[in-house]
Amino acid sequence: MSSNTIGKIFSFTTWGESHGKAIGCVVDGTPSNIPLIEKDLQKYLDKRRPGQSKYTTQRSESDHVEILSGVFNGLTTGHPISLIVKNRDQRSKDYNDIKDIFRPGHADYTYWAKYGIRDYRGGGRSSARETAMRVAAGGIARKVLEHKLNNVFKITGALVQVGESKINYEKWDDKFIEKNDFFCPDKNILKTWEKMIVSARKNGSSLGAIIEIRCKGMPVGLGEPVYDKLDADLAKAMMSINAVKGVEIGNGFKSVMETGVSNIDEMRIKNGKPEFLSNNNGGILGGISTGQDIIVRFCVKPTSSILTPRKTLNTDLKEIEISTKGRHDPCVGIRAVPVGEAMMATTLADHCLRYI
Amino acid sequence: MSSNTIGKIFSFTTWGESHGKAIGCVVDGTPSNIPLIEKDLQKYLDKRRPGQSKYTTQRSESDHVEILSGVFNGLTTGHPISLIVKNRDQRSKDYNDIKDIFRPGHADYTYWAKYGIRDYRGGGRSSARETAMRVAAGGIARKVLEHKLNNVFKITGALVQVGESKINYEKWDDKFIEKNDFFCPDKNILKTWEKMIVSARKNGSSLGAIIEIRCKGMPVGLGEPVYDKLDADLAKAMMSINAVKGVEIGNGFKSVMETGVSNIDEMRIKNGKPEFLSNNNGGILGGISTGQDIIVRFCVKPTSSILTPRKTLNTDLKEIEISTKGRHDPCVGIRAVPVGEAMMATTLADHCLRYI
Amino acid sequence: MSSNTIGKIFSFTTWGESHGKAIGCVVDGTPSNIPLIEKDLQKYLDKRRPGQSKYTTQRSESDHVEILSGVFNGLTTGHPISLIVKNRDQRSKDYNDIKDIFRPGHADYTYWAKYGIRDYRGGGRSSARETAMRVAAGGIARKVLEHKLNNVFKITGALVQVGESKINYEKWDDKFIEKNDFFCPDKNILKTWEKMIVSARKNGSSLGAIIEIRCKGMPVGLGEPVYDKLDADLAKAMMSINAVKGVEIGNGFKSVMETGVSNIDEMRIKNGKPEFLSNNNGGILGGISTGQDIIVRFCVKPTSSILTPRKTLNTDLKEIEISTKGRHDPCVGIRAVPVGEAMMATTLADHCLRYI
Amino acid sequence: MSSNTIGKIFSFTTWGESHGKAIGCVVDGTPSNIPLIEKDLQKYLDKRRPGQSKYTTQRSESDHVEILSGVFNGLTTGHPISLIVKNRDQRSKDYNDIKDIFRPGHADYTYWAKYGIRDYRGGGRSSARETAMRVAAGGIARKVLEHKLNNVFKITGALVQVGESKINYEKWDDKFIEKNDFFCPDKNILKTWEKMIVSARKNGSSLGAIIEIRCKGMPVGLGEPVYDKLDADLAKAMMSINAVKGVEIGNGFKSVMETGVSNIDEMRIKNGKPEFLSNNNGGILGGISTGQDIIVRFCVKPTSSILTPRKTLNTDLKEIEISTKGRHDPCVGIRAVPVGEAMMATTLADHCLRYI
Repeated sequence: MSSNTIGKIFSFTTWGESHGKAIGCVVDGTPSNIPLIEKDLQKYLDKRRPGQSKYTTQRSESDHVEILSGVFNGLTTGHPISLIVKNRDQRSKDYNDIKDIFRPGHADYTYWAKYGIRDYRGGGRSSARETAMRVAAGGIARKVLEHKLNNVFKITGALVQVGESKINYEKWDDKFIEKNDFFCPDKNILKTWEKMIVSARKNGSSLGAIIEIRCKGMPVGLGEPVYDKLDADLAKAMMSINAVKGVEIGNGFKSVMETGVSNIDEMRIKNGKPEFLSNNNGGILGGISTGQDIIVRFCVKPTSSILTPRKTLNTDLKEIEISTKGRHDPCVGIRAVPVGEAMMATTLADHCLRYI
Repeated sequence: MSSNTIGKIFSFTTWGESHGKAIGCVVDGTPSNIPLIEKDLQKYLDKRRPGQSKYTTQRSESDHVEILSGVFNGLTTGHPISLIVKNRDQRSKDYNDIKDIFRPGHADYTYWAKYGIRDYRGGGRSSARETAMRVAAGGIARKVLEHKLNNVFKITGALVQVGESKINYEKWDDKFIEKNDFFCPDKNILKTWEKMIVSARKNGSSLGAIIEIRCKGMPVGLGEPVYDKLDADLAKAMMSINAVKGVEIGNGFKSVMETGVSNIDEMRIKNGKPEFLSNNNGGILGGISTGQDIIVRFCVKPTSSILTPRKTLNTDLKEIEISTKGRHDPCVGIRAVPVGEAMMATTLADHCLRYI
Repeated sequence: MSSNTIGKIFSFTTWGESHGKAIGCVVDGTPSNIPLIEKDLQKYLDKRRPGQSKYTTQRSESDHVEILSGVFNGLTTGHPISLIVKNRDQRSKDYNDIKDIFRPGHADYTYWAKYGIRDYRGGGRSSARETAMRVAAGGIARKVLEHKLNNVFKITGALVQVGESKINYEKWDDKFIEKNDFFCPDKNILKTWEKMIVSARKNGSSLGAIIEIRCKGMPVGLGEPVYDKLDADLAKAMMSINAVKGVEIGNGFKSVMETGVSNIDEMRIKNGKPEFLSNNNGGILGGISTGQDIIVRFCVKPTSSILTPRKTLNTDLKEIEISTKGRHDPCVGIRAVPVGEAMMATTLADHCLRYI
Repeated sequence: MSSNTIGKIFSFTTWGESHGKAIGCVVDGTPSNIPLIEKDLQKYLDKRRPGQSKYTTQRSESDHVEILSGVFNGLTTGHPISLIVKNRDQRSKDYNDIKDIFRPGHADYTYWAKYGIRDYRGGGRSSARETAMRVAAGGIARKVLEHKLNNVFKITGALVQVGESKINYEKWDDKFIEKNDFFCPDKNILKTWEKMIVSARKNGSSLGAIIEIRCKGMPVGLGEPVYDKLDADLAKAMMSINAVKGVEIGNGFKSVMETGVSNIDEMRIKNGKPEFLSNNNGGILGGISTGQDIIVRFCVKPTSSILTPRKTLNTDLKEIEISTKGRHDPCVGIRAVPVGEAMMATTLADHCLRYI
C-alpha cells in the first residue's frame, strides 16, 4: 500500500527527487507481448519537458528515459517495467539561498513538519519533476489501451483557461493544439495568453489555469462501484498532480446551474446502437463509462515561485520574506497538460484491465 | 482490493442494495478500547435519513443501525466492526413500471451494460441508499479521531449553493446550520431556497447544489505524497458519492482567477507558533495538512428522477419516454451534507492512523 | 488493507466473534450472472459444523447461512455478497471460569497484550468459529471456478496423519473420504484413529494432524510472480487457519531427501499435449500452476483446550493452573479439512480471475 | 496490488531480470531520519553473493548496490528508496543452447505458457537473481527495526539440514555460523556436508536443504489477525523465495507427533514478567508474536540445473533431453540463508510499523 503507487491492476510506483541522481518508476500489470521501445515513451516526455519555449521554465532537462526491465526483444514480458531518467541539470547550489526557508505556497513547511527533514533542492520529492515519470507511465498505459482496444481511442489534453481568459469552445481545433506552446485549442485567444504570461512574469507574479482532458473511444463499462468508480479514480489521479486544487467531470460545477430537465443526457437509438443526445455527465454514469467521450477538467493554482517578495518563515521559525529567483514557469498549467493526459491514460488502462 | 472498500488503515466495506434485505458495512482498523455504542452512530444516520422534511423524499426509512461485532462491553476490540441496517420500506412493486427502463441520468444503462443483469428496485446497488453506511462508518471514524486527537476537532458540513443561489459567506453561522432542513449556514437565503425547491418539484424538475465541508482542529502532517495525498484521497472520497460531479479544495477553481501574489498563503508567527495569513489552499499544501481548517467543496447534479418526461431506452433497446413518479428528493444535495461530513471523517481517520 | 480481508480480485472480509450476535463475511469480486442460492453454501458449512460425531466437539451450532446482498433473482449481480450466520449457542457463562485466565497454547495472552482488552467468551475473534465464514466464502469461490472453468475441477481434502499414524497413500480412496467422520482416505487406518482420539480425550489430552488438499482440473498459468506466487498465496491462506504450524507443496519437506535427479518432474508429450512424468512439485513451478493436480499439505497442532491441568497466568499476572472443561475437539485437524478446501478454493478463484 | 510488491506499511517492489541491464527495488514506508548508507546494505548482498566458495556457483557478480533516492545527507527522507544493482556478468550467449528448451524443474514451461514469451537468459524474471534485491530491502528493514526497537533484536539464519544430514541442535553455535561457507551452526557436521556437496556436483546431481531463521528481541504484539497473522505473512514471504516447497513455525510438522499436554507452552512469571516455559509455537500464538524468539524453517528443493540429462520439451513441444551445464549451485539452500533472513526482517519491519 505504498503511497507512491497508484492503480490496482495496471499500477505504477514513482521514486526520486528533483535534484537527486535520477527519478524513475516501476510499472506493473502490463500484459505480455506488447511492442514497447523507449521512443514510445520519449515523445510524451518531450512534450512535458521544460525549456522548450519562453513561456515555460528555462531549466534544461533532457529527460531521456531508459527502460531497464520488463521488455525482451522489443516486447513486454508481463513483468515489472523499470524506467529511469537520470538528472543532468542538478544545479543544487541554486538552492542554497532557500536552504532554510519555507517557500510559501509550496510543500516546504508541511514536508518539514511531517518528516522532520528538509531536502531543499528544488522541493526534493515534492517537486513537479516527479510528474515526468507519470508521463512515462502514461506512455505504457497507452500501449496497453491500444492492445486491449484495437487502437481506436484518442486522448486530447488542452489548456482551456489562463487566469480569467477562457477559450471559446465553439472554436476548438484539435490540430491547433499541437501547433502552439500552450496546448491551446482556440487560435483566437493565443495572443492574449502570450501577453498575459509575459506580463505576469514581468510583474513578478504568475497565473493559474484550467486543463481539459478528453478521451474518445472508450467502451461502455469501465469503472468499479462504489469506491473505485471511474470518476472517483480520475479525481484522485488528477488531484494528486502538483498544484491542482479542483477536478470536475463533464459539466462539473456548472451542472449546479442546470435543472434535472436540462442536465439529463437523454437516450435514443442511432444506427442500431444506444446513443446519448448530450454529454453533460462527461461520459460517466454511476461511476461507469457510458461509451461517450470521457471529459475531465482540473485547475492548477498560480505558480507559487514568484519574484514578488512574500512573507514566510525559516526553519528556525523566524519571520522573513522570500523572493523566488531562478527558472520557474509563470503558469505551470501549460506543462500540466501532458501530465493530465498521462493520468487519464493510466487510470483508463487500470480499469480496462479490471473489466474482464 | 475490493472496489467496495475505501481506506487503507482505517477502512470500510459496504454492501447491500436499495431494496434488498439489509445494507451494511464492515469497518476495520479501529483501535481497541474506544467506547462505542449504537447511539454514537444512530445520530448521524438520523441526520441523513429521508422523510424528515417536505424538502426531501417522503420515503420512510427508520434506518436503525445495529452493531454485530467488534465491540465488547461497550469498547472496541480492535477487530472488524460489522454494522447492519435492515431495510423496512421495501415497496419494490413501486418499481415494476421501470423494471425494463433505463432511467436517464442514472446508472441503469451502465450497470446493465457492464454486469448484464438489472436489479431494477430503486437502482439496486447504485442507489444513494448505500450512503447510509458511509454515514455510519463516519460515526466510527469520528470516535477514532476523538481518541487520537483528544477531542479537539469539529467537522461542519453545509449547503452553500442551490441552483444559482449562493450563500453570503459573510453571514455564515455554524449554529444556524443545525436549525434548518437545508444545512444552510446563511439565515437570509433560506426562504429563497425553500421557494426554489418547492417550485422545482412543482415543475417536475430538480436542482443541483454545492456542499462545503470544513474540518477544524486537524494537526499538521496528515497526507501521504505523492498519490495518497490528503486532497487526492478527499477528492476520491467525495467524487465516489452518488451524483457528485466536481470536487475542489480551498479556493479551488476560483484560484485560477488569482495571481501567485494574491493566492499564496503567507506565514507569520503568532503566539510562538507558525500561522498562515490566509487559507486559499484549504489547509493542504503538497498533499499534507497545514494545521489550518481543511476545506472541501463538491457539487451534486440536479436529481435525475423527475416527473417531466425524458427520452430513454428500455432493455430491448426500444425508444421510450419516462416520467419518474414516486418519492424523490428535488435536491439530493441536502442529504449529501451528512454524507460529505462522513467521508471527511473517514478520510481523516485513515490518515490520522497512518501518520504515526 | 484490512487485515481481515484476503484475496485481491476475488476477496472476502470476515467479521464476528465466537459468542457475539453473529459471524459473517462480505465477498467481493464475484462476476455477475452466476447462479447462487444459500443451499450452495450450506452444504459446506454442514461439513464443517461441530456436533456431528463423537470425535468432534459436542457444541451444537446450526450454522445456518443467509445471503443478505449481491444476489438478485438467484443470480449474482457483481456486487458484494454479504453472508451472515447467527450465533445460537451462546452459552457464554460457560466461560466465566476462564474470564481472567490466559488459556495456554491459545491466543489469549497475545490478544490481551496487543489489544489491551479481553473477549473471554470462547476466544472471541481468535476462535476457530471464524472459519465457518471461510467455508461459506469457499462455496462462492467454487461457483466462480465452475463459471470460469466450465465445471471441470475437483477439490478433495483429507486427513492424512493423526498423531504419529499416517495413511498408506497406496490405499487412497476418494469415495471413502465422504463416508467417515475423519475425512480419512484409507479404510485400513480408520479404526486406529478412532481409538487414538477416544484415548486422547480420556487422557485429557489431544492430538495433532496433517491435512492434504488436492485440486484437479486447474489450467496451467495461475499464479503471479514474484510475490503473489500461487504457492506463496496458498501458504498464507493455510497458515492463517487456526492452529496451523506448517504448510508444504507437493513433496514439501520430503524433497530435501531427494536429489536433483530424482526430484525433477520430467516432461513428455502425451496425446499431443505436454505431460509431466511425476508431480513432486505439487503442480506449481516458479509460483505458477503447471496444469497438474495442485497438492498442499498443512499440519494442525494438538488442541490446546485439554483437561490435563497446565501452568498459566491470569490477567493479574498471577501464576495459576488451568484445566479446560467444556466441549472441545480432541483433534481440531478433522474439522480443518473443509476449511483447507475452502482456502484452496478461494485462493484459486482469486488467481483464476487475475489470469486474464 | 502489484504482484511484485510485498508488505503493506513497509513494502518493497522488485524489478529486473537475471541478464537484463540491472535489477532493483523500490522500498516504501521507511520512516524519515534513519541513518542509511550503501554500506549498510552491501554487507548483506556480499553475504548472498555467488562466487564466494567452491560450494556455490562460480558465476561472478559484484552485486554493487546503489541508492538512487529517498536518502538525503545520509538520512532517510520518508520517501521511496530506489536501489539498483547493475548486471555486469551478462554472458547471455551461455544460454543460447537452452534458448528453446524448457529446463525441467524450473519455471520455463509455466512462464512460457502463461506469458507467451520466453526470456531464456538464465530464467529471466524467474531467476533467483531477484533475491539480491530482497536482501537489499532486508538491510533497510533492519534499520527500521533498529530505529523502532532501540537496537535490541538479532536475526540469525542457518542451514540445519542438507539432504538427509541434520545438525545436532545441542551443538548450535551462533558464532560458528559466520565462520563457514554453509551458514552451518554445528561444527561437527560441516565436513560431512562438504563431502556431500562435492559428491553431488561430481555425480551431476544436487541436494536440498532446510534453513532455519530465528529472531530474538521482538516485542509481544506483532501480527494482525485474522489474515495478516505474523505466521501467515512469514509463510507467504518464505514460500515466495525460489525453490522453497515448505514452511513451518516453531515445532511445525513435528508438533503433530506431540500431544496437547506436551505441546502447550506453559507460562510462569520470571523477574516480574510473563515467561513461557518452552517455545514449541515458535514465538507466535494466534498469529501474534509472544515476545519469545520467532522461529521459522523452510525447505529448498534440490537445484534443478544439473548435469545429468533429464527428459523435457522444447518450445515446439518436441521431446528432448537436457543436461544443464554452466555455473550452478549444487545446493541453493546455502545462498537461501541470507534471503530468508531478509524476508524475516522485512516482514517484521512491516508488522512493527503496523503495530502502533
